[in-house]
Amino acid sequence: MTYRIFHLGIEIENTLGEQVSEFAERIFDLYTEMENSVRDLTGEISGALTIGASTTIAEYMLPALLGEFKNQYPDINLRLKVSNSEGIVSMVEHNVIDLGIVEAPVTNKNLIVEVCHDDHLVVVTAPNHELARRGTRVKPAELIQYPFVCREEGSGTREVITQYLIDQNVNPAEMNYCMELGSPEALKGAVETDMGISILSRSTIVKELKLNTLAELQLDPSLSRPFSFVRQRQKFRVRIMEELLEFAHAYCQRQK
Amino acid sequence: MTYRIFHLGIEIENTLGEQVSEFAERIFDLYTEMENSVRDLTGEISGALTIGASTTIAEYMLPALLGEFKNQYPDINLRLKVSNSEGIVSMVEHNVIDLGIVEAPVTNKNLIVEVCHDDHLVVVTAPNHELARRGTRVKPAELIQYPFVCREEGSGTREVITQYLIDQNVNPAEMNYCMELGSPEALKGAVETDMGISILSRSTIVKELKLNTLAELQLDPSLSRPFSFVRQRQKFRVRIMEELLEFAHAYCQRQK
Repeated sequence: MTYRIFHLGIEIENTLGEQVSEFAERIFDLYTEMENSVRDLTGEISGALTIGASTTIAEYMLPALLGEFKNQYPDINLRLKVSNSEGIVSMVEHNVIDLGIVEAPVTNKNLIVEVCHDDHLVVVTAPNHELARRGTRVKPAELIQYPFVCREEGSGTREVITQYLIDQNVNPAEMNYCMELGSPEALKGAVETDMGISILSRSTIVKELKLNTLAELQLDPSLSRPFSFVRQRQKFRVRIMEELLEFAHAYCQRQK
Repeated sequence: MTYRIFHLGIEIENTLGEQVSEFAERIFDLYTEMENSVRDLTGEISGALTIGASTTIAEYMLPALLGEFKNQYPDINLRLKVSNSEGIVSMVEHNVIDLGIVEAPVTNKNLIVEVCHDDHLVVVTAPNHELARRGTRVKPAELIQYPFVCREEGSGTREVITQYLIDQNVNPAEMNYCMELGSPEALKGAVETDMGISILSRSTIVKELKLNTLAELQLDPSLSRPFSFVRQRQKFRVRIMEELLEFAHAYCQRQK
């Protein structure tokens, strides 16, 4: 709301402010609606879209999807903000981004949440690590024997791992967390230098597997998590956003 | 200040609060000093350190450095927060992290800034891009002919590129920015799918050059930037932090 008011260059407080703010909101919505209906008539798809995604999705899955989308609609301006799942959901809530894509379950009832495809998680080690040489599936209880490099609190990956351990009767407090790193890329670097092992989305280690700087092992039972699209319920849906959602859903279907 | 008060579980406001807060600060500093002098006597190096680094440094340079450091001092707990340069400087200011390492120049006079080694930036394209096939050095004025994928405002890399263009008499507004992406990893993905070209730290594309999914071209004149260590002037320096700084400086020297 404040965001839209700032467009007018006005700063207003209290009840009067709220009323003006409400009208301004309606005026801008109408303006957007008008723009969209003009575009519908002319068939033009343009404008700006700000997407936010949690790191794993933003760095390893979105570039290809956005590339295809941009090829189809060259006139749109795309912006991608990267944060952890918690940060992205907060950006959707505060209207900083039009669409969020996150790895963690989202429970906020004011937001529309749509589940996309499943992401597969694996144990990652240095190639010469004891587990990699052994080469069988890894039981969750075995994880506590090794120094473990983990993501920070608020990371979707971290939450999924903690829940998995609890579900498998392993106490997360028994894990030998040796380092906490704020991005999957930094985490991979730490595992490559054999500081510890970790659990990561398989999509993030494709290059390292090719270069043989990391090894992967399956978990037993296996672990996967859904990706979710998150957006505001009340938000006026611009045409370009509809197109992106449809495009993304089709993309997800193809990945299955 | 607030951070230390929270250790006591007390929330205090106004003048009285300020005084208590000052005393609490001094008590905690003395406590830390005591701990350190005990450690000095016993020769033990342990404790927790929270480091923050801008993405390029955190993801491509720090893991190796932190790995060596952790090998030498296995009892310390390391945490690494990742943000852009602007975000990291703000974390140092607000005492969220003990030490920041950033790519952009820092001008805040309340912070101690020490320059480390120089990072080399190159033009990055898809392997089959016109520029890659031509293979000569790239003049800054040539950049405006191609769609350009860039980092967000507040990114150190973006600031350095903008300043370079201005210094070379190229108007940054003439650049054909086609997409704005919030991390170097996402940006590489976009260049790999040939959405545009970009300028990146050479240290971030080592794996892609090996896999031949990206090509690099030198700029003419060349472009580099210093990395800076940033920390609070007033902060009591714990022993483990002294060790890390010394270690990092030695590491930087070796990279030269």
